[in-house]
Amino acid sequence: MGAAGYVGGELIRILGSHPQVDITALSRVRAEEEQSLTELQPQLRNALANLPERVVGFDAHRLGELCEVVFIAAPHGQAMSMAPLLLAEGVKVIDMGADFRLRDPLVYEQWYKLQHTETRLLAEAVYGLPEIRREPLRTARLVANPGCYPTSAVIALAPLVEAKLIDLTSIIIDSKSGVSGAGRSKLTLEYLFTEVTNDCKAYGVASHRHTPEIEQVLSELAGDPVTVSFTPHLLPIARGILTTTYSLLKPGVSEEQIDEAYKRRYAQEPFVRLLPKGVLPQIKHVIGSNFCDVGWKIDQRTNRLIAISALDNLVKGAAGLAVQNMNILFGLPETAGLQSLPLYP
Amino acid sequence: MGAAGYVGGELIRILGSHPQVDITALSRVRAEEEQSLTELQPQLRNALANLPERVVGFDAHRLGELCEVVFIAAPHGQAMSMAPLLLAEGVKVIDMGADFRLRDPLVYEQWYKLQHTETRLLAEAVYGLPEIRREPLRTARLVANPGCYPTSAVIALAPLVEAKLIDLTSIIIDSKSGVSGAGRSKLTLEYLFTEVTNDCKAYGVASHRHTPEIEQVLSELAGDPVTVSFTPHLLPIARGILTTTYSLLKPGVSEEQIDEAYKRRYAQEPFVRLLPKGVLPQIKHVIGSNFCDVGWKIDQRTNRLIAISALDNLVKGAAGLAVQNMNILFGLPETAGLQSLPLYP
Amino acid sequence: MGAAGYVGGELIRILGSHPQVDITALSRVRAEEEQSLTELQPQLRNALANLPERVVGFDAHRLGELCEVVFIAAPHGQAMSMAPLLLAEGVKVIDMGADFRLRDPLVYEQWYKLQHTETRLLAEAVYGLPEIRREPLRTARLVANPGCYPTSAVIALAPLVEAKLIDLTSIIIDSKSGVSGAGRSKLTLEYLFTEVTNDCKAYGVASHRHTPEIEQVLSELAGDPVTVSFTPHLLPIARGILTTTYSLLKPGVSEEQIDEAYKRRYAQEPFVRLLPKGVLPQIKHVIGSNFCDVGWKIDQRTNRLIAISALDNLVKGAAGLAVQNMNILFGLPETAGLQSLPLYP
Amino acid sequence: MGAAGYVGGELIRILGSHPQVDITALSRVRAEEEQSLTELQPQLRNALANLPERVVGFDAHRLGELCEVVFIAAPHGQAMSMAPLLLAEGVKVIDMGADFRLRDPLVYEQWYKLQHTETRLLAEAVYGLPEIRREPLRTARLVANPGCYPTSAVIALAPLVEAKLIDLTSIIIDSKSGVSGAGRSKLTLEYLFTEVTNDCKAYGVASHRHTPEIEQVLSELAGDPVTVSFTPHLLPIARGILTTTYSLLKPGVSEEQIDEAYKRRYAQEPFVRLLPKGVLPQIKHVIGSNFCDVGWKIDQRTNRLIAISALDNLVKGAAGLAVQNMNILFGLPETAGLQSLPLYP
Repeated sequence: MGAAGYVGGELIRILGSHPQVDITALSRVRAEEEQSLTELQPQLRNALANLPERVVGFDAHRLGELCEVVFIAAPHGQAMSMAPLLLAEGVKVIDMGADFRLRDPLVYEQWYKLQHTETRLLAEAVYGLPEIRREPLRTARLVANPGCYPTSAVIALAPLVEAKLIDLTSIIIDSKSGVSGAGRSKLTLEYLFTEVTNDCKAYGVASHRHTPEIEQVLSELAGDPVTVSFTPHLLPIARGILTTTYSLLKPGVSEEQIDEAYKRRYAQEPFVRLLPKGVLPQIKHVIGSNFCDVGWKIDQRTNRLIAISALDNLVKGAAGLAVQNMNILFGLPETAGLQSLPLYP
Repeated sequence: MGAAGYVGGELIRILGSHPQVDITALSRVRAEEEQSLTELQPQLRNALANLPERVVGFDAHRLGELCEVVFIAAPHGQAMSMAPLLLAEGVKVIDMGADFRLRDPLVYEQWYKLQHTETRLLAEAVYGLPEIRREPLRTARLVANPGCYPTSAVIALAPLVEAKLIDLTSIIIDSKSGVSGAGRSKLTLEYLFTEVTNDCKAYGVASHRHTPEIEQVLSELAGDPVTVSFTPHLLPIARGILTTTYSLLKPGVSEEQIDEAYKRRYAQEPFVRLLPKGVLPQIKHVIGSNFCDVGWKIDQRTNRLIAISALDNLVKGAAGLAVQNMNILFGLPETAGLQSLPLYP
Repeated sequence: MGAAGYVGGELIRILGSHPQVDITALSRVRAEEEQSLTELQPQLRNALANLPERVVGFDAHRLGELCEVVFIAAPHGQAMSMAPLLLAEGVKVIDMGADFRLRDPLVYEQWYKLQHTETRLLAEAVYGLPEIRREPLRTARLVANPGCYPTSAVIALAPLVEAKLIDLTSIIIDSKSGVSGAGRSKLTLEYLFTEVTNDCKAYGVASHRHTPEIEQVLSELAGDPVTVSFTPHLLPIARGILTTTYSLLKPGVSEEQIDEAYKRRYAQEPFVRLLPKGVLPQIKHVIGSNFCDVGWKIDQRTNRLIAISALDNLVKGAAGLAVQNMNILFGLPETAGLQSLPLYP
Repeated sequence: MGAAGYVGGELIRILGSHPQVDITALSRVRAEEEQSLTELQPQLRNALANLPERVVGFDAHRLGELCEVVFIAAPHGQAMSMAPLLLAEGVKVIDMGADFRLRDPLVYEQWYKLQHTETRLLAEAVYGLPEIRREPLRTARLVANPGCYPTSAVIALAPLVEAKLIDLTSIIIDSKSGVSGAGRSKLTLEYLFTEVTNDCKAYGVASHRHTPEIEQVLSELAGDPVTVSFTPHLLPIARGILTTTYSLLKPGVSEEQIDEAYKRRYAQEPFVRLLPKGVLPQIKHVIGSNFCDVGWKIDQRTNRLIAISALDNLVKGAAGLAVQNMNILFGLPETAGLQSLPLYP
């Protein structure tokens, strides 16, 4: 679902070369009439054998017959009605949107201005960030794929929060994202090339919907409520998120403790690259790959820790992470289909 | 001095259309042999009448005969030796570099790894940010033109610090800058087009030399020592700085108090545009102009104030501000030569 | 007319600092309700004194009372109905669109798929390219401001055609343009930042509407019919056009003859910069200015002349040229208001 | 050879996921001291198992022991001395540079200002463009990998030249390239981000060294000497070439004949995508892939054919094509390791 968008295109790119996957159906929300994939994603022309030729509207029964898992890349509110129908057909569902990310339906309603109609499924849904909690994913039917900003912020902060190295009230998250995060269907003046190029601006200040998602995950890791200040910015690039986080170290925390906390969490993770001391992430080093790079530095003068992450919002921030989750759901090697290297420069 | 660089070119662009200025000499540091301005700044070909044809080496005596004021746009350490010679010739000096910005020569030596040889002049130099302190500029002989990051950070934070609305230990400054800030003479891999495009990265984390300059100005305004965390980032654009600041509001501070503090400071300033409530600055709205746009928002959930500024690093962050300072030095209308509008889009 | 668009914004930028102009009215086509200029052009906030606050719908009578000249920057077809009403009010009109550029209404209808309803005015309108024909502009009531591509192509080719140095059947024009040429009102997928960045493509191949305009001007200069191949390309930049032209030199034509032809035409032109031998134009050297840079080189092996021009499509390709035309219409110095230098880098 | 450059990095990216390849040695020209691959190509950190850790200087004997084939991505002149040593060790060589592309050593000397010292090997070398001539590659020891511009121009023009549909004296090639084509080692002002962004310019007009290479291949295909006008332009993008070609159709040539000529040549080619009628290539559709997209249109008014191609200069224009050639040399499936899809957007 959502084959016409940027996340949809990226799912096809990744799944199309996944050794254990066949793409058996392509759908989109606004499919009054069928369209060919080539019209919607011309870069894929003649590029993949065995792809369905037509992108058709949502039909749970048909998808049930054709698929073992369905990815939903649609605006929030849509997955809420599609997921139960698909699950009823015995299909697993990975929702790329926000409908099943927030445990508390009231929080969902507060931030998304929409009543949650599937609170039972909400309780069942598993938040799909394997680096934080992998086990429940192995048996999930419904995965809530994290937001791109939360993935970048949580990967940078999780070891600190979990190991109780930082003051939980001090966390500031300053993210910078490429424009593809806004999707392909918002044809507004704001996203025209001429308006974005040569610019940078903050948006959604103190009000972005990814804030409660970040807080939910960090709170669970901390065992205590975490409130953060989160400020996203728009960069004049197509892909990538750089997230700079600031937090106060608790008294007496040493550089070694921080180093250990990060290594404990991530040394075995296939897609998190801990950078060596003194090296900080940059977006360009991860584009096209499922890597999330993480680096950090202590500001001795203020006793703050600056932890920074970089990922490709369409890969580790969306489609790549979803395929990683799918691999876990189906007991496949977790890196299957995800080994393409960063495209540089 | 420095006619071959980006700041030098910008000074010529602005001064060239200043109604009360004649450009009488062009120099550069690396001027073993004379060069024509057109070789160094080809965009200026045939564009200005009455410009000196040759860019020659530094010669204080010659400049003393030709000029009333000399702008020095040279790497730090150079102005320290040039300024006393020029002043001795009776010429006023506006130094675009760092040599006369930090009051304390020990702080200079600590951050710039260079002994300060002109501590007497250092004591005399006036920090050239008219929005903060205009009076001493009227009679100055030697102006230390602020750094681009400090200008953007100080303009965003000054009203809060001065009116004691924020916790002085809580200030975080997350800046994003275009590449022209790195100058034109650093031919390193890092600044190649292919390396910068599609990227964003932090640099100089917890160690950037503009940090003590920001702290010096804010401390003077606060009447108390201020220590900040300052993180600059490189954006894939040529011009512009967006600075996002975070600070904790003191208990009980109201939105009205903040609004009043900003208006008190800036309502009469010709080059600071206070944006209306809910509107935040973007780089694209100030490019090519001497404006610094400022907006802010309270994060009610964390009681933080997010104050944001945008300026063109080569204009309000360098050449435009220098011309503004020159206008004050010579009793000219402060906006003379500085009325060109933002180039949009 | 058209104050909300890119050309409209550029007209305000230029006219706003023109010493002999007051902007007395701002209108736009889609003005069901009044809007403030700041909403539409936020970069102009507090930037100009004495600007009308509201942008209102078209009202010929009102404009007649307020203005001596009206600039129409509207999609083709609109000016055809507005111009006669404005002229009847005694107002001069400079049309930035295509309605009055093509002498032959049948050619207009063929390329624009619209019947021309003002053929009498069409006969009266003066094509506003002063470098080609300045005299008729002095007494014009209605000026057809040239298209951005035609201006760039004609300035590059006019001396060659006029001096009969090239084979008129051999002309190929390969243009590369920034995206602002597409205007601000076309909210289509094609112009989203994510779609344009990192890309380059040809469009309108063998069918672009500027083709007959180029041919009309070159044919008049040649005294013989000229047919050209014209291919525009979209560049991932906001502003600027680079036009590369190819033509076969007639037998025996020397480098000196070419040099003389260019100098004869342009040596006295304030806004055409003939580059010295071996130097070719680049877009970046003219951005923000009214300059059109021209350079050329002979390909000795094929006896072709490659003549190249660069201009800013919003300045010399639209608003700047229109102000230049206005200056001529009203007997003002031709460079008045147009002396801002290229913004570099 | 050349592991530090952009082409070298791209070779590692592609070969690293090639099912039948082990990368056994990494070298570079300027390797006074060993360096780690991660220092030189930080995007590859922890990304590939079994890569040599060190990048060392050229040592033919060592490479002979470790490798079956060596790719040389070095400035011209270098391969001339390396290739014979490697061949003597029994290693096949694919030279990404210009040393073995031009059959005639005098033409090489004329364009590259360097005497050719290996004329015997020059005679043996096979020009590596499988779409034009695949058979000789199967048994080659030394492959001259084509230049990026020639690949794009020849693929666009070959069917026309070969089927004698166009006037061979009429060919004009107007190419637009991303900056990575200039390589990573040229640290000159011209390639700084600030100088390239927002710009477009022609360079090497009537003098680019890829001209004789294009002419050599087209002449062989035509059976008659072909002389072309070739003008490369620099685009503000990292990757990609768009080549727009113009040629006069011979009298009576029909659209069907052109269509057939293209289909005959390319219908079976795995990496050339012939676009359907009316669709023209764009760079963005091929980035990161080994595709070369081709489309064309007749300009009926001038009887010219405009044929356009798009490719990624680092993939189909360099490393991807080299791997395709390697696959042929070793009898592997031609598409092995080359199936990664375009990265969009």
